[in-house]
Amino acid sequence: MQRFFLHTPVRLVFGKGMVKRVGRQLEVDGVTSVLLVRGRASARQNTSLSTVEASLAKHGVDVADQVVVQPGFAVEDLMLEQGKAERVQGIVALGGGSVMDAAKALAASPYISDLQELVAGQQDVLEALPMYAVPTLSGSGSEVNGHAVLLSRKLGRKTSAKGPALYPRCSVVDPTLQAGIDFALTARGALDAMSHVLEQYVMAQSQETAMALCEALMVSLVQAAEALRQDPDAYLPRADLAWASILAQNGTAGAGLGGGEWTVHVLAHQLNVSTPTTAHADLVAVLFPAWLERVQDVEPELFQRWTKKVWAMEDKASGIASWRETLKRWERPQSLNEVGLTRQDLEETLAHLPESVGRRFPLSRNELSVLLEQAWQGPL
Amino acid sequence: MQRFFLHTPVRLVFGKGMVKRVGRQLEVDGVTSVLLVRGRASARQNTSLSTVEASLAKHGVDVADQVVVQPGFAVEDLMLEQGKAERVQGIVALGGGSVMDAAKALAASPYISDLQELVAGQQDVLEALPMYAVPTLSGSGSEVNGHAVLLSRKLGRKTSAKGPALYPRCSVVDPTLQAGIDFALTARGALDAMSHVLEQYVMAQSQETAMALCEALMVSLVQAAEALRQDPDAYLPRADLAWASILAQNGTAGAGLGGGEWTVHVLAHQLNVSTPTTAHADLVAVLFPAWLERVQDVEPELFQRWTKKVWAMEDKASGIASWRETLKRWERPQSLNEVGLTRQDLEETLAHLPESVGRRFPLSRNELSVLLEQAWQGPL
Repeated sequence: MQRFFLHTPVRLVFGKGMVKRVGRQLEVDGVTSVLLVRGRASARQNTSLSTVEASLAKHGVDVADQVVVQPGFAVEDLMLEQGKAERVQGIVALGGGSVMDAAKALAASPYISDLQELVAGQQDVLEALPMYAVPTLSGSGSEVNGHAVLLSRKLGRKTSAKGPALYPRCSVVDPTLQAGIDFALTARGALDAMSHVLEQYVMAQSQETAMALCEALMVSLVQAAEALRQDPDAYLPRADLAWASILAQNGTAGAGLGGGEWTVHVLAHQLNVSTPTTAHADLVAVLFPAWLERVQDVEPELFQRWTKKVWAMEDKASGIASWRETLKRWERPQSLNEVGLTRQDLEETLAHLPESVGRRFPLSRNELSVLLEQAWQGPL
Repeated sequence: MQRFFLHTPVRLVFGKGMVKRVGRQLEVDGVTSVLLVRGRASARQNTSLSTVEASLAKHGVDVADQVVVQPGFAVEDLMLEQGKAERVQGIVALGGGSVMDAAKALAASPYISDLQELVAGQQDVLEALPMYAVPTLSGSGSEVNGHAVLLSRKLGRKTSAKGPALYPRCSVVDPTLQAGIDFALTARGALDAMSHVLEQYVMAQSQETAMALCEALMVSLVQAAEALRQDPDAYLPRADLAWASILAQNGTAGAGLGGGEWTVHVLAHQLNVSTPTTAHADLVAVLFPAWLERVQDVEPELFQRWTKKVWAMEDKASGIASWRETLKRWERPQSLNEVGLTRQDLEETLAHLPESVGRRFPLSRNELSVLLEQAWQGPL
């Protein structure tokens, strides 16, 4: 068990109907004027939106302005909006992972001279407006972490800014906001959370408690998504998916596992520069089998255990096969080609990668090139 | 999944050798003068003590005074010491659960007119000096929760005070402090943590993620204790025991489970009034099989699942049998009689209990009387 520091300052308000209580959370903090950051309008979003607005109004919180975050947004887009953040006391985010991450960047913007620093910088973000998250899609875990994944078109990079100021002050997680959403969204959320657990799990070296927790989370995530495929309105699996996604990112899953591997995330973020509107989860879901194929023989016992505990299969090749069958069953892409990436995109991605990626399983640029080619072709 | 509010403000510093960093944690908070609350001196305690003192001195923290907590202490004993708390900026606790709980009471003492209020009162504790915990025994979870279990001889009660001010500001959990301790202490810690998970688990109604997490924790706790029975110096199981005990009490295990059942704890606390020096863990460990026997037929599926997932047995009677075999293997008491309680103690305990105890499995005073008698006799 490696050393760790754990401090998750986010106040988490979780459960059916809790979205109505968001205003109260700002009131107790004395925040009376906010910028509302949200995703594109849809009938569903509009219902959540009016509930959030009503709760804020009831508790004396003025929505001074709004920002609508577009899929594939970059910090360049946020820079056009940052004046709005300078005139409020806090930020409310209503949306999925990218909306919450945009809201975090806007929360930090009054304290940063150039938002590109969040993508380029190595420095922890220490100052930001208080940010309140109301996730409408579970998976990213942004509602409980101090990270914001951001793309810069100018720098040609997508990376994760971090720092204590990027934790939401409070997150109101109401699983009913996600009732009945398209299964594609549910599947992406589950795959995103699965990938977060797996990136941390693969660092394990006989840390039994941590491994058992990660295994329980991965099993729960698949199980919850399967239940929601049958019944998108079921409450319990919706709540399970939300809670497991939180535990994957609030420091619990990875405690003692040395910070995680994150190779697949480095690749997915860089690929996203070429196709900004492609869902992050679809990229990691396609990359993981290719990554597993390259590394599993280095630590056969680890991946055998993963296969057995998470997929209930004995042979370690079955783990990868089960992952791919899950993608098929959930009607997700199986290859980077299918996602819309070209071989030229792979070349550009490779050019931006460091000489070696990975900590326990470091892969050279040559190995990454082979991995990307395999992920591009998909299963044979 | 029931609604919940989760906020664990404790900064957790975890790992080998981290005890040396305790002083730094007070320094960042600007605390320069403390009261050190600790258990009785022993060779082992003395080593931890000198390390903590050296770290505090290095970071400019003056240990103005000390309080040595005796087993079976009551708030009446703490009242004799509370003047010491009024002259410092913070409290450092070095010890097991009861030492940490005593330290919490002393931290609150400058803000309370009469410490009996902590035992009698229903009010949340909102003010206290910052408290820093360095646990030398894992199990209680006091290092990460906002509770303090306290006995009042005057009131004839032992109960749990709670409130946001009772969370430690920071806990430094260094599993190496527990290397090589008597197995009796390790076993008690594991049983205490098991009982915390089980009290919450038994509230589950198909919350898959929460149940899977609790099961993973219970399996890990038994496994870690078994490994330490073979080798008390092994690091990984020691760290597992420490981490699983934390997750049992930091809000993770019970999230969405409606707050827990806690009948066995109510009984154990009241029994402890009659025998204050009996280890809490020995009482809960003896009471649980008797409680399970009374309630398991109300929710047979729940206890069948528990038996299968935690003890890897099919028949639900095997769960109770496995618990008892574990007590035997770990050389723990099997009955309240063996613990030293008399039938007269049971009568006094019953007289102090409310008409009914329990939420999902409410038991009348008559049923509790039968339960206590069975626990007193132990397995037939």
